[in-house]
Amino acid sequence: MSFKEFEFIELLSKLLPKGRGVEVGVGDDAAVVKAGKTRLAVSTDALVEGTHFLKEWKRLVPELYRLLGRKLLSVSASDLASTGAKPLFATVTVGAPELSEELIELYVGLSERAQELKTSVVGGDTVKSGQLFLELTLIGKVERPMLRSKAKPGQLVAVSGTLGDAYGGLKQLLNGEVREPKLIERFLNPTARVKEGLSLAKLGVECATDVSDGFLFNLKTVADSSKVAIKVEEELIPVSESLVNLLGREGARRAALFGGEDYELITTFEPELKEKVESLGFTVVGTVEEGKGVFLNGKEVKGEGFDHFKE
Amino acid sequence: MSFKEFEFIELLSKLLPKGRGVEVGVGDDAAVVKAGKTRLAVSTDALVEGTHFLKEWKRLVPELYRLLGRKLLSVSASDLASTGAKPLFATVTVGAPELSEELIELYVGLSERAQELKTSVVGGDTVKSGQLFLELTLIGKVERPMLRSKAKPGQLVAVSGTLGDAYGGLKQLLNGEVREPKLIERFLNPTARVKEGLSLAKLGVECATDVSDGFLFNLKTVADSSKVAIKVEEELIPVSESLVNLLGREGARRAALFGGEDYELITTFEPELKEKVESLGFTVVGTVEEGKGVFLNGKEVKGEGFDHFKE
Repeated sequence: MSFKEFEFIELLSKLLPKGRGVEVGVGDDAAVVKAGKTRLAVSTDALVEGTHFLKEWKRLVPELYRLLGRKLLSVSASDLASTGAKPLFATVTVGAPELSEELIELYVGLSERAQELKTSVVGGDTVKSGQLFLELTLIGKVERPMLRSKAKPGQLVAVSGTLGDAYGGLKQLLNGEVREPKLIERFLNPTARVKEGLSLAKLGVECATDVSDGFLFNLKTVADSSKVAIKVEEELIPVSESLVNLLGREGARRAALFGGEDYELITTFEPELKEKVESLGFTVVGTVEEGKGVFLNGKEVKGEGFDHFKE
Repeated sequence: MSFKEFEFIELLSKLLPKGRGVEVGVGDDAAVVKAGKTRLAVSTDALVEGTHFLKEWKRLVPELYRLLGRKLLSVSASDLASTGAKPLFATVTVGAPELSEELIELYVGLSERAQELKTSVVGGDTVKSGQLFLELTLIGKVERPMLRSKAKPGQLVAVSGTLGDAYGGLKQLLNGEVREPKLIERFLNPTARVKEGLSLAKLGVECATDVSDGFLFNLKTVADSSKVAIKVEEELIPVSESLVNLLGREGARRAALFGGEDYELITTFEPELKEKVESLGFTVVGTVEEGKGVFLNGKEVKGEGFDHFKE
């Protein structure tokens, strides 16, 4: 018997009861809990050799492990960003066949990124494992958490940065050739939009999520959990020149819609905030309406994304 | 090039700078950090197939995965216990080849244990991995943290429960036979001494650690970090009847001194607290004195322990 990932998460969220102090449990980008008078946001992510990265990539990208160390923190920081939280403390677990120079490179990258994000790595565990895996749990502070379930009809939908770049980077790594190095950088060293997330929360924005599983897929989690319809215009979706160079116009289009791991933010907000949100580097791509589902150029799309367990 | 685990941790603790709000970073049982006005204790631990457990054990112990789910939480809870912290929230990461029934059993065990410890599992990540690994990060609240570096000359040394049982359990599993099931239970389902840790802290005790790597080894971490000598009398060390049945008197003695994963507490405290500490289930086994090193029956011992990376 095998479960699909989302069914599995739903089953778990029933199995694991929501206790005292838990404001947002399993299901959103980050958990939100109250400890004493402090509201914390907590997120955890893992990178596994063979699933999220391949050792061979070091041939193409000599600084692979340093970038993976950076990415390990950025991925969780992105979850905190979309919650409007400020990262503070991280713990790290590394499973590895041996304590090698490459692990040191990884920690150097992690340490760099931690300093950039003013986050302290306060503990961790190093264990022996045949397969290399990296896990990081990030704890931050949040005043008013943004949730994916707070989209409201009448709002605008916007996204930060450009979409599909990480897919373009991954594709080059899998093909074993570097044609557009910027895209590889975007895949291995994503920008977590922490500043942007904090600025959105400060503007009073209540709904955000990050693009981890693919733009349309993550839009669908917003539409479903908010019980609204989301309509986006494809021509408005921001795509980089590098991605078009690599994949052509049609390939770039598909990467932007379905590619995962961009770690950009999706947000919905009242129309009067449009200019302020745009000035943070967001592009308006659509609207929230009554109803349900995600619509692309007026046509309903089925949720597709990046499910590591799918065949 | 390969590093020994403790050298590696020392290198990391230099690499990863201690930032604002960090009261205790890498190196003690749990990190202690300040978020707003709340003082948090954070600990993280991992269990890896092939290193910490073998799939084959299910033949001997049908409820293996349920117990591993319990152990995953207990191991981190033990770190919080020795810090005098109250566990509140956990995140869990599971890496697995597929989403199986056994993973559900694991989460059932984790959920049971979480309810016993009034801890909420608030989030996590499920990722594809050829090798099964489990990681848990536990966040708790602490008023005055107990540290392993706070032993003072003139104090008594005590330990909770009995020592060596987990080694007796592991030995049976590795030999493929069940002779003393209680010991297997002690290995797969250790008691985290959370209540005892909180009671010690309430008595004003300042020094504790848990027996994760072996009694003598963990005593040495207390002696070294506190810059004191610790003298213990072997005949005072509490050993269970089951362990003597399994290993004989001499085998039980060695298991109690060197065996890891007992997750009992070691504490040092002023002599006037003796009766109160004993009433919590602790046995006084020695004294703290000026000097350095660990002495067994008056003879200095070298630190030995359970290092997963040692050949």
